[in-house]
Amino acid sequence: MATTRGGIDLGGTKIQAIIVDDDHQVLGQARHPTPKNNGPQGVADGIVAAFTEAAADAGVEPSALAGVGIGSPGAVDEQRGTVTQARNVTPDWTGEFALGPAVASASGASKVKVGHDVTVGTQAEYVLGAARGFDDVLGVFWGTGVGAGLILGGKIWVGRGAAGEIGHMVVERGGAKCTCGRIGCMEAYSGRKAMELEARHRVEQGEHTKLFKIMEERGRDQLSSGIWARAMEHDDHMAKHLIGRAVKALGAGIASAVNLLDVQAVVIGGGLGTRLGEPYVEKIREAMHPHLFVDQNPPDVRLSTLGDLGGALGAALLVKD
Amino acid sequence: MATTRGGIDLGGTKIQAIIVDDDHQVLGQARHPTPKNNGPQGVADGIVAAFTEAAADAGVEPSALAGVGIGSPGAVDEQRGTVTQARNVTPDWTGEFALGPAVASASGASKVKVGHDVTVGTQAEYVLGAARGFDDVLGVFWGTGVGAGLILGGKIWVGRGAAGEIGHMVVERGGAKCTCGRIGCMEAYSGRKAMELEARHRVEQGEHTKLFKIMEERGRDQLSSGIWARAMEHDDHMAKHLIGRAVKALGAGIASAVNLLDVQAVVIGGGLGTRLGEPYVEKIREAMHPHLFVDQNPPDVRLSTLGDLGGALGAALLVKD
Repeated sequence: MATTRGGIDLGGTKIQAIIVDDDHQVLGQARHPTPKNNGPQGVADGIVAAFTEAAADAGVEPSALAGVGIGSPGAVDEQRGTVTQARNVTPDWTGEFALGPAVASASGASKVKVGHDVTVGTQAEYVLGAARGFDDVLGVFWGTGVGAGLILGGKIWVGRGAAGEIGHMVVERGGAKCTCGRIGCMEAYSGRKAMELEARHRVEQGEHTKLFKIMEERGRDQLSSGIWARAMEHDDHMAKHLIGRAVKALGAGIASAVNLLDVQAVVIGGGLGTRLGEPYVEKIREAMHPHLFVDQNPPDVRLSTLGDLGGALGAALLVKD
Repeated sequence: MATTRGGIDLGGTKIQAIIVDDDHQVLGQARHPTPKNNGPQGVADGIVAAFTEAAADAGVEPSALAGVGIGSPGAVDEQRGTVTQARNVTPDWTGEFALGPAVASASGASKVKVGHDVTVGTQAEYVLGAARGFDDVLGVFWGTGVGAGLILGGKIWVGRGAAGEIGHMVVERGGAKCTCGRIGCMEAYSGRKAMELEARHRVEQGEHTKLFKIMEERGRDQLSSGIWARAMEHDDHMAKHLIGRAVKALGAGIASAVNLLDVQAVVIGGGLGTRLGEPYVEKIREAMHPHLFVDQNPPDVRLSTLGDLGGALGAALLVKD
């Protein structure tokens, strides 16, 4: 019986595909940029390409796998394998798209399941990573946007299907405009997309930064987490300022979530969280402190231990058993 | 077998005691102002006095009851019946006090259980009131402070014991100072205590209001929910402005909680919520709307149907069966 599985982490900038065995060991992988020009179908094609390459890397046929799981942004209907409003992935992904069925028919995989990216990422940290041993966990994924996964009493919590939008908790009424169009969301300060818009705006205003020079040197057209990290290493003033601003907003938003839910542990993941690492997890702890109502008993705030592969490992958990 | 029970709602301004039968019908009640001058023991004495009066009103001996439940602010240890840091009740309630044992020994009640006020209030709305039929409920109690109770998947959620501090979610970084000492908490705008401090400050600055005149006419020394409601009826400019400001903060904070948890229903209770009623629940719905991430699918936002007695009815549920 096939116990080898595929896992896909669909992100705003990249598609990470892995093949794992029954013990979650990675047998093969591939990483492609997220296609931006052909809508949801183009993204499905990109997923199939990355998955096929990862299967070849592992030396297995896609059809021989027990199945493939996909972690996706947007509103996910797990039963039907559909995804709605994943505009961070591709701008015209506004309606509903049957991502699971599209990948199944094009890839030859016997079973395809779709879950919410941050939920599967949190589940991965809970089963395999930094949150092992806790029952109540808030996973915070700091990347293009800021999303959260919740494990409450040992079970995934999705509410009516749309829980975890920590990035759109209000931390500053009357404050910055978010990429979602609302005002004062945490993501308006902390999301990498919003941070890039702010950086571009500041450059237009005459401020200097190495961010876009590093971007051009790398042949990219947007500011990846690696570019932000590199600019920080170069002591870039604007990068330091905007990351500091992001951390302050994360502190307020995560502390607010903790005040409401009183979870045991918070795991920081996502592209920026993973790339900036433990020194910035410490800065997030410090930024939470002034807003924690029970500040003598903070939750355990930990860096993701699965890092870049956490989302794909969690997606592969969707098709385990 | 005795199935008649007592329920006590301990608030920042009053102690509400009721005696109920097995069908939650109120057989007797009493309402006393919360003693402010003799610390936690004075509060325990006040609870016993109100409870004894309610029992007499119902024509039963305290010792003949199946038990009495107490809903208390602060950090509650249900196992031990202790309450820590209930400064909204009496200013020097900073340490731990064994409220349950103190009430048991002085009242002659056979069983005393203590729960968190907003948790038992939410449980009452879930079992008996506005939240019947929902599995996932956020109860928001708008009074001296702003607290929340959570029912998730049909079960009370308390986290590590301190969940529900919705009043200390950050809605405006760098904003108003909260009575808790922190900055920008929702309660800094919406809590009745903070609102009174702001009103006194504005009067010192030369602004006019009928709030304190109504307070004096009623022989009170603080602004109760009834005083705020009466000032609104008199079209008092300051009262209208500060209530409007409170509603805006409630909208941002409750929407943030919904974005994180995606509950089915929100119940608005507490002294101010109950007194101002449905027109202000509608204003809260409107204030939530611009901050809801999935604004096409808002939760059902309802006024508490148990009103002033909800907390005491929920407290009595603590000793049912």
